[in-house]
Amino acid sequence: MKHARIRYQGQSRDAIVEADGGLRLTDGRRLGEDEVEWLPPANGTLFALGLNYADHAAELDFKAPTEPLIFVKSPSSYIGHRQTTRRPRDILHMHYECELVAVIGKTARKVPRHAALDYLAGYTVCNDYAIRDYLENYYRPNLRVKNRDAGTPLGPWIVDVDDVPDPSRLQLRSWINGELKQQGNTADMIFDIPFLVEYLSSFMTLAPGDMIATGTPKGLASVVAGDEVVVEVEGVGRLLNTIVGDP
Amino acid sequence: MKHARIRYQGQSRDAIVEADGGLRLTDGRRLGEDEVEWLPPANGTLFALGLNYADHAAELDFKAPTEPLIFVKSPSSYIGHRQTTRRPRDILHMHYECELVAVIGKTARKVPRHAALDYLAGYTVCNDYAIRDYLENYYRPNLRVKNRDAGTPLGPWIVDVDDVPDPSRLQLRSWINGELKQQGNTADMIFDIPFLVEYLSSFMTLAPGDMIATGTPKGLASVVAGDEVVVEVEGVGRLLNTIVGDP
Repeated sequence: MKHARIRYQGQSRDAIVEADGGLRLTDGRRLGEDEVEWLPPANGTLFALGLNYADHAAELDFKAPTEPLIFVKSPSSYIGHRQTTRRPRDILHMHYECELVAVIGKTARKVPRHAALDYLAGYTVCNDYAIRDYLENYYRPNLRVKNRDAGTPLGPWIVDVDDVPDPSRLQLRSWINGELKQQGNTADMIFDIPFLVEYLSSFMTLAPGDMIATGTPKGLASVVAGDEVVVEVEGVGRLLNTIVGDP
Repeated sequence: MKHARIRYQGQSRDAIVEADGGLRLTDGRRLGEDEVEWLPPANGTLFALGLNYADHAAELDFKAPTEPLIFVKSPSSYIGHRQTTRRPRDILHMHYECELVAVIGKTARKVPRHAALDYLAGYTVCNDYAIRDYLENYYRPNLRVKNRDAGTPLGPWIVDVDDVPDPSRLQLRSWINGELKQQGNTADMIFDIPFLVEYLSSFMTLAPGDMIATGTPKGLASVVAGDEVVVEVEGVGRLLNTIVGDP
């Protein structure tokens, strides 16, 4: 099942996404996907991985990490499906990053690897935009690179854990204006989801709604104002977003 | 005026801290400071500065940064005044860090330096504990160093902006079991509060309740289980916290 958060007639609501793409509200009403404003499907803390695909680390001329590189993003950067993201003026490199996101479903503290998936509500998709012009150090990107308003599209929905038989074997693809630009597979992650749940919950408590964005594979390309950007994780979702110029 | 958040009889409440240290609830009742559980005085996103005092950067044998080093902390790490923080097993270096915190009072976007203080609700104090054993890179500390449960005591309260005539001239002091260990002054900050509000709000929106922890001066020392740790910012507050062992 696919669980969305939407705004309709000024109110935030939960909705189920049906097989034909229509949205069913909890009160039974049915809406088309164009009739609503899509919100981020979760609003907890977002833990984002850097350099979690060996091919992407190599592309950036960086050694693959031996411990996960994880940074926290602030909710002010989250937006939903079909929203717009600003491209700052006077920059050269604004890169999309297609990522599989694990969404926490129940309080997780010292969870062993083998039980990790029991603590997930499901999966969603993230486009973790990076303004690489501002990067001084790959170790952990600074906030001008990674924490801008509307710089983290999330969604469109959360798909149940049971609907994704093997999260370690999913195709990731990104398109700019319909042209395929990035392709990868979650099989190439350095630290997989069970490891990341075990690692993070070993020293902190993960709460329902928290998210782990698991990093992006090779295949960076820059976007400009007017571009329509789609990032897709096989069996999870296809997240659309439009780039606008900074006025 | 000093504004606290406390829990009393199972409910979270706002309180004013009176001149003698007593707490006045919004319904008029008066409580002693020992009768309540102190909560973090704000719960927004915490933006924490690394290496924002030149003497501290030198102490760590690190060059002072030319752009602010800022990382985001997750609310799961926040605790209030008089709470306990666990010292992990098998580590050598658990350092307190006394910091002045600017608390955002109204939505801030593209705020110029000269108007920055108008956007603050006030100031509080943070003890931004660091487990330095886990540090691989000073550039931006990893989550095992800086994002542990209860690793960010905050409080005791927010003091109004108008009650702090000059935030750039405040003494910072830390004690372990009554012994003075750290002394510094906010005059030695590399990036001051007006700069930080201007910088952050130039590319993201700061929301009421967001906090900017402005970094710590020289004078690190390690704490062990049983220690009572006090960090104080002159004219803002004195934040007490106790270290317990990991069971």
